[in-house]
Amino acid sequence: MQIAIIGLGRMGGNIARRLMKNGHECLVYDRSVETVAALSGEGAVPAASLGELAAKFSGRKVFWVMLPAGDPTEATIRDLAGLCAPGDVIIDGGNSFYKDDIRRAKELEPSGIAYVDVGTSGGVWGLERGYCMMIGGPEETVRDLDPIFAALAPGYGDIARTHGRDAPDDRAERGYIHAGPAGAGHFVKMVHNGIEYGLMQAYAEGFDILASKNSEHLPADERFALNLPDIAEVWRRGSVVSSWLLDLTADALASDHSLERFSGRVADSGEGRWTIDAAMEEAVPAHVLSAALYARYRSRSDNTFGDKLLSAMRFGFGGHVEIPQ
Amino acid sequence: MQIAIIGLGRMGGNIARRLMKNGHECLVYDRSVETVAALSGEGAVPAASLGELAAKFSGRKVFWVMLPAGDPTEATIRDLAGLCAPGDVIIDGGNSFYKDDIRRAKELEPSGIAYVDVGTSGGVWGLERGYCMMIGGPEETVRDLDPIFAALAPGYGDIARTHGRDAPDDRAERGYIHAGPAGAGHFVKMVHNGIEYGLMQAYAEGFDILASKNSEHLPADERFALNLPDIAEVWRRGSVVSSWLLDLTADALASDHSLERFSGRVADSGEGRWTIDAAMEEAVPAHVLSAALYARYRSRSDNTFGDKLLSAMRFGFGGHVEIPQ
Amino acid sequence: MQIAIIGLGRMGGNIARRLMKNGHECLVYDRSVETVAALSGEGAVPAASLGELAAKFSGRKVFWVMLPAGDPTEATIRDLAGLCAPGDVIIDGGNSFYKDDIRRAKELEPSGIAYVDVGTSGGVWGLERGYCMMIGGPEETVRDLDPIFAALAPGYGDIARTHGRDAPDDRAERGYIHAGPAGAGHFVKMVHNGIEYGLMQAYAEGFDILASKNSEHLPADERFALNLPDIAEVWRRGSVVSSWLLDLTADALASDHSLERFSGRVADSGEGRWTIDAAMEEAVPAHVLSAALYARYRSRSDNTFGDKLLSAMRFGFGGHVEIPQ
Amino acid sequence: MQIAIIGLGRMGGNIARRLMKNGHECLVYDRSVETVAALSGEGAVPAASLGELAAKFSGRKVFWVMLPAGDPTEATIRDLAGLCAPGDVIIDGGNSFYKDDIRRAKELEPSGIAYVDVGTSGGVWGLERGYCMMIGGPEETVRDLDPIFAALAPGYGDIARTHGRDAPDDRAERGYIHAGPAGAGHFVKMVHNGIEYGLMQAYAEGFDILASKNSEHLPADERFALNLPDIAEVWRRGSVVSSWLLDLTADALASDHSLERFSGRVADSGEGRWTIDAAMEEAVPAHVLSAALYARYRSRSDNTFGDKLLSAMRFGFGGHVEIPQ
Repeated sequence: MQIAIIGLGRMGGNIARRLMKNGHECLVYDRSVETVAALSGEGAVPAASLGELAAKFSGRKVFWVMLPAGDPTEATIRDLAGLCAPGDVIIDGGNSFYKDDIRRAKELEPSGIAYVDVGTSGGVWGLERGYCMMIGGPEETVRDLDPIFAALAPGYGDIARTHGRDAPDDRAERGYIHAGPAGAGHFVKMVHNGIEYGLMQAYAEGFDILASKNSEHLPADERFALNLPDIAEVWRRGSVVSSWLLDLTADALASDHSLERFSGRVADSGEGRWTIDAAMEEAVPAHVLSAALYARYRSRSDNTFGDKLLSAMRFGFGGHVEIPQ
Repeated sequence: MQIAIIGLGRMGGNIARRLMKNGHECLVYDRSVETVAALSGEGAVPAASLGELAAKFSGRKVFWVMLPAGDPTEATIRDLAGLCAPGDVIIDGGNSFYKDDIRRAKELEPSGIAYVDVGTSGGVWGLERGYCMMIGGPEETVRDLDPIFAALAPGYGDIARTHGRDAPDDRAERGYIHAGPAGAGHFVKMVHNGIEYGLMQAYAEGFDILASKNSEHLPADERFALNLPDIAEVWRRGSVVSSWLLDLTADALASDHSLERFSGRVADSGEGRWTIDAAMEEAVPAHVLSAALYARYRSRSDNTFGDKLLSAMRFGFGGHVEIPQ
Repeated sequence: MQIAIIGLGRMGGNIARRLMKNGHECLVYDRSVETVAALSGEGAVPAASLGELAAKFSGRKVFWVMLPAGDPTEATIRDLAGLCAPGDVIIDGGNSFYKDDIRRAKELEPSGIAYVDVGTSGGVWGLERGYCMMIGGPEETVRDLDPIFAALAPGYGDIARTHGRDAPDDRAERGYIHAGPAGAGHFVKMVHNGIEYGLMQAYAEGFDILASKNSEHLPADERFALNLPDIAEVWRRGSVVSSWLLDLTADALASDHSLERFSGRVADSGEGRWTIDAAMEEAVPAHVLSAALYARYRSRSDNTFGDKLLSAMRFGFGGHVEIPQ
Repeated sequence: MQIAIIGLGRMGGNIARRLMKNGHECLVYDRSVETVAALSGEGAVPAASLGELAAKFSGRKVFWVMLPAGDPTEATIRDLAGLCAPGDVIIDGGNSFYKDDIRRAKELEPSGIAYVDVGTSGGVWGLERGYCMMIGGPEETVRDLDPIFAALAPGYGDIARTHGRDAPDDRAERGYIHAGPAGAGHFVKMVHNGIEYGLMQAYAEGFDILASKNSEHLPADERFALNLPDIAEVWRRGSVVSSWLLDLTADALASDHSLERFSGRVADSGEGRWTIDAAMEEAVPAHVLSAALYARYRSRSDNTFGDKLLSAMRFGFGGHVEIPQ
């Protein structure tokens, strides 16, 4: 199938590569001429502008936009809409907010342009392992694009079958789902990332408790100098907490026991925050998911105004002068 | 009434002063000779040792121990027990863990010594405002000591009467209660401090959100440079969040708008932690009270091992290199 | 000053009354004819429509809209805008989202209509105690309306002066502030409510720990049957946790020790949620404020899908069958 | 190696079976005669009392106690100590609190009895998959017992090697570690369970947000009726949140889409609570791990006193009467 990939960063470039490896024809565009040239050298059809990209399609145009969420994606989709005819497809494979998808699908509908949103997980490992995809959009369009999704997905692999599963639709087992109408793909991906933050924070807190068990503030006979790389490793074997994130933890600890190379300042992206917004709208308690996010916020501050206020109150009622510990 | 005060720090010294002001005879002991001498100059009967202190009683001995919780209090109570006769009273007015009270009361019972625990709130303001006291111990002993408690308590003052209150016992309205058997006093005081942490953290987070509303990360037309001293002040007038802690907040902000004099490293004491232990034992959800405690822990670290682990995982699955913000 | 009040519910009606008591002339409108008639009987000038209301002004028109946030407020402001001339003022005294204020002020600016948002705290007690107000809008307009705000505010009252306060502007001490441009008033009020939720939840958790201390799951010698009304009462006297919310708690417990009349299902309003949204946008950790909100969500569910999922996982890895406790 | 297993429940019985399958000689005791007889039929040497059990050893005695933590384990270890000679070994393979291990090891040391604690993960799957073990105790004893641990552990299996791992000790890769002195094994297992609770709650909250996205309280065009079994399934393929717990989630949802068979009342065991106690002692923030525990507490209550108190306060300041939603 002919498909254009717009945005050839880490994700977009590898998506093009995996599609070409599976026999699809990729037209590619990026604002970096060098990046386009590189992909061209690997077999992609280069374009120097969105217009040129559109012109290179032989039939129905399918655009896969793989750009940062927000303005870059928004502007590109607007420009592409002007290059589309009824029946053409615009796919947002980035990390857009799902309400933007709902809006865009409505805006494009009168022009007969189908809008599809694809939440994509897999990171730098996707080229090799395949991409886990959560897709929103019209039933028919998603079916039409199935060869694309099937090529990008990991496939059955050697993962054990789920017990009792007898769904006629085996796409989930091959690594992609049609989650619902426009927005549903990014919504599911958004919650995926919210969960991811919660899982990560659970490991982080647990390992922190392990690492701090040798603190001199504890009674001498209750201190343990624990071997964290070994603990991560052993939990990978038959324990309830085994996971891919634990595998990565074991990887990281194996070569850097005290993780000295990391500053401890942790970024977060929109999905985690939007997950909390969704919990608010649905009135669902999400203590863990929001705590995970707050821990990242806190990691980026040396101290907070709120903490100073606590000290100020303590000074007010007790004459306490805080002494750094 | 004759009463001995052991430990003449900020709290113990003022308790002696308030008792003397109300006509009680205070025998005083502290390991600092100067401190004893100072109180003696204000009318207290000095003693150079616990033995001398005991010897100065003309009748039933009543000891009020006002020392740091843990070893100092434990050792002193053990020593005092050896100086007591049946009918004498030992009061722990410090911040002991309530299970220690339960144990001590049992240990002293065979000797006929009555054990009373008094949780005391009021801080540096107690001398002037009076002390709010939560008392545990035998009914009869607590009744016997009533003149002491009545003198220390704030009394009715000009606080508006509670609607619908018709309890025959007006001690609560005068600022002290007999909460139950040994341990109950410190238990109630402990939960009081747990709540205190939660209240403080609620203000801290709220003012943090106000203070950060002028952040350059926000869209320009959504930034406000808010006047925090004025906000604290106005909330003291007819708003739902008015409280003594808010009064202290207004005090602090009035003279130091950005609280620059505080480092943002906030101490915590045993009561907050024990409150969480109690919640655990009772299976009561205490999200807010534990979050308040964790915020203080976090305030004392520059970064955590857990945060580094998050970065390590992020690097593992996405190749993300964290950039300090 | 002539002022129109639109919406004569609990809040709007009392605002009109307090203004009239202070010599202002109130034009009133409500969709309920009876309510308008009642206020008219107390001295207000009645109107049967917004148009009639506007026509009754002798000079500059000042409208105070006191309606539920969202559609009712939005529609009314749109209608009023059509009745305004340059120099007229529309005040939203309800609980609007502050970003709606920012937008409305921009929309009205070309017509020369001044937009003012007033966050109002005080509830059913405002008529008597006065209203604590947080105001957003143009400097000059807020100054012009000062007689209105001064009349509604509690004034100095007998509240102790804040130490070290020497601000030339004494409005905060009289119970109202000009927080900033349009939206700033509701923003400050929003955070006020966020804090309110946190404070309330801190008390709720603490009293829950007290109430559960008599549970049969605890060792017999560690149980206390605590007198909650007395505890709330005593904490009102000289303790660190004294507050107006604690006063209300003491009121409630005095006449209903076990609060049997309440179902335990607790509502929440937009401000709490928006406060969390603001924390997200500002990257401020707000563990306590969000936990307070989640507790309310949870209070309204018998059980959650998430809880069932926990049981399902437990069954999966351990064969555990959950037994209700 | 000769080893006695005391307690032949789900875990103890399978441990005996796996040991026998690997050529070890198992002496078995349980207070249920039938259970002993059943294991005897599978090749174990039965005993009718601890004394008889001890008498059947031909040389050094090694007891593996697999009983509920607390009194049953404590009493049995005390009884076994009376049957031991210097050089014998008592292993606690249950879920004891690690501070009990530290104490017991000290108590047994004068008698020359070696005490070993083994935290064991694997649940009902252990017989087949092997048990992940975290071991505390004297270096030499743990080395001596290595054939036992090696037989119980999962071994390398087909799990991918951790990158960069070059530890000389490969026990972690075979599924067991010597974590440190007595108590260290159960400490690591305890934190493991704390993490497990956090991970589970992260999934629970995420799936709750997905399940509630079809709520009638949401705007119609923002509702999605999501296929949860498919979502769990697809996340097993190449996504960041893949894990064994997710596999179990997919299993559960495949056959029971709405999990109707579960009441939503979720039990918790000591390890989760002790993990929070440890976090308290170490002053480590553990928002996620404690929130996970609180969610379980809350799941077992229809409503809380705290929630009623919230309603009581709301009634007090606003006249709000809560209406069940």
